[in-house]
Amino acid sequence: MEKTGIVHDGVSIKIYDTEDPEKVIISFTDEITAYKKIKKAVIKGKGKYCNGISCEISRILQENGVPTSFIEKLSDTEQLCWKTSVIPMEVIVRNVIAGSMAQRLGLEEGIVPKEPVYDLCYKSDILCDPLINDSQALAIGLVSQEELNQIYSMTQKVNAVLVPMFKSIGITLVDFKTEYGHMPDGSLVMSDDITPDSARLWDIATGQRLDKDRFRHDNGKVGEAYKDVYERLTNREKFL
Amino acid sequence: MEKTGIVHDGVSIKIYDTEDPEKVIISFTDEITAYKKIKKAVIKGKGKYCNGISCEISRILQENGVPTSFIEKLSDTEQLCWKTSVIPMEVIVRNVIAGSMAQRLGLEEGIVPKEPVYDLCYKSDILCDPLINDSQALAIGLVSQEELNQIYSMTQKVNAVLVPMFKSIGITLVDFKTEYGHMPDGSLVMSDDITPDSARLWDIATGQRLDKDRFRHDNGKVGEAYKDVYERLTNREKFL
Repeated sequence: MEKTGIVHDGVSIKIYDTEDPEKVIISFTDEITAYKKIKKAVIKGKGKYCNGISCEISRILQENGVPTSFIEKLSDTEQLCWKTSVIPMEVIVRNVIAGSMAQRLGLEEGIVPKEPVYDLCYKSDILCDPLINDSQALAIGLVSQEELNQIYSMTQKVNAVLVPMFKSIGITLVDFKTEYGHMPDGSLVMSDDITPDSARLWDIATGQRLDKDRFRHDNGKVGEAYKDVYERLTNREKFL
Repeated sequence: MEKTGIVHDGVSIKIYDTEDPEKVIISFTDEITAYKKIKKAVIKGKGKYCNGISCEISRILQENGVPTSFIEKLSDTEQLCWKTSVIPMEVIVRNVIAGSMAQRLGLEEGIVPKEPVYDLCYKSDILCDPLINDSQALAIGLVSQEELNQIYSMTQKVNAVLVPMFKSIGITLVDFKTEYGHMPDGSLVMSDDITPDSARLWDIATGQRLDKDRFRHDNGKVGEAYKDVYERLTNREKFL
């Protein structure tokens, strides 16, 4: 499959059109950014680990009945996906309180809520991706009530599949961000990659962070942490 | 009823304990503040108009089956209320997009959403009253799911009563903020005053703002606007 033009020229991810108008190639780079792209670095191997983790998670989700835009892994750093019409809304699931929720609400990181917390953010660089609630998402026309119900239901399913899967490889799925999009036939699919760039993953045994927080907080060993997640995920049978 | 001590020493509102431990006196001052109390002024008569508007709205809500903490008007600037255990959460209803929602989401003021928008804010001075969603309100223990359902249902009722009432006196109820609290017997009541300090009121004929936005935006005639609302409310039969 040949690339025919760039659709999204991100720092960590680039998306290319292909000869097939319904398919795109997603390419993961070794670059990492934080704090609205002010902090930047290159982490050798990151593209390979993120692509590998994303492909593996997409496969697991599809096997468990969650429709995603993923088609197949093309190479170490590239995957082929269906081209979806993405809803500009992030859906965040928090099984453990951390990050922006802890900061905004003055909470300690590590608190486990009785039920997972679901946040919605309106994707807009100029507005800094503001947190929105259901009635705002409806009012600004991001989704219909029916779509929103479907998105919550799919996200619950993603969480219900991934929490025990990560637990089986010694990792707590603290939180993750996902996005949804419409396929050419109108059906809704998860259209985002889940990687340590967009999910918080804590080692159950040591509490060590295995995600982008290592980079945000200058903890070092960022590449090692991503590699660790990648290897645990792709060698799951060892843990069973 | 004698005041026995101050419970809340606010700038625009002061709340006093009374000889009866179940009742408080709410006293409205002529002071007005905006932008986290950085901008301040004294508007002669404001205390009288806000107390009058608040009493009248509470009476109307009670007549229409919405339980509130209001007992009776004591004087021009004071009212007697039940002392409730207030839930530290603001509930905002937006019939027309304006103010912070317009700013946060990059929308024009004046857009009318298909359905009213409901926002929740966690009342915390130190955190600057952050916007929260339902699952966050539950996670941090502000309310139970049952209480939240009841709060939404009561707020819908408040809006359903006040929108046509304001329309009958030539005013669009653009948005308003309210709060809820528990009575000594545990029942939930609306425990906040609705005034032009906490509601946006636009004159239907002219579009003129009849609320605190006049003060925020240096439009002048703040007292006149509050007096206008007060007089329309207390002389409603003239409009029928």
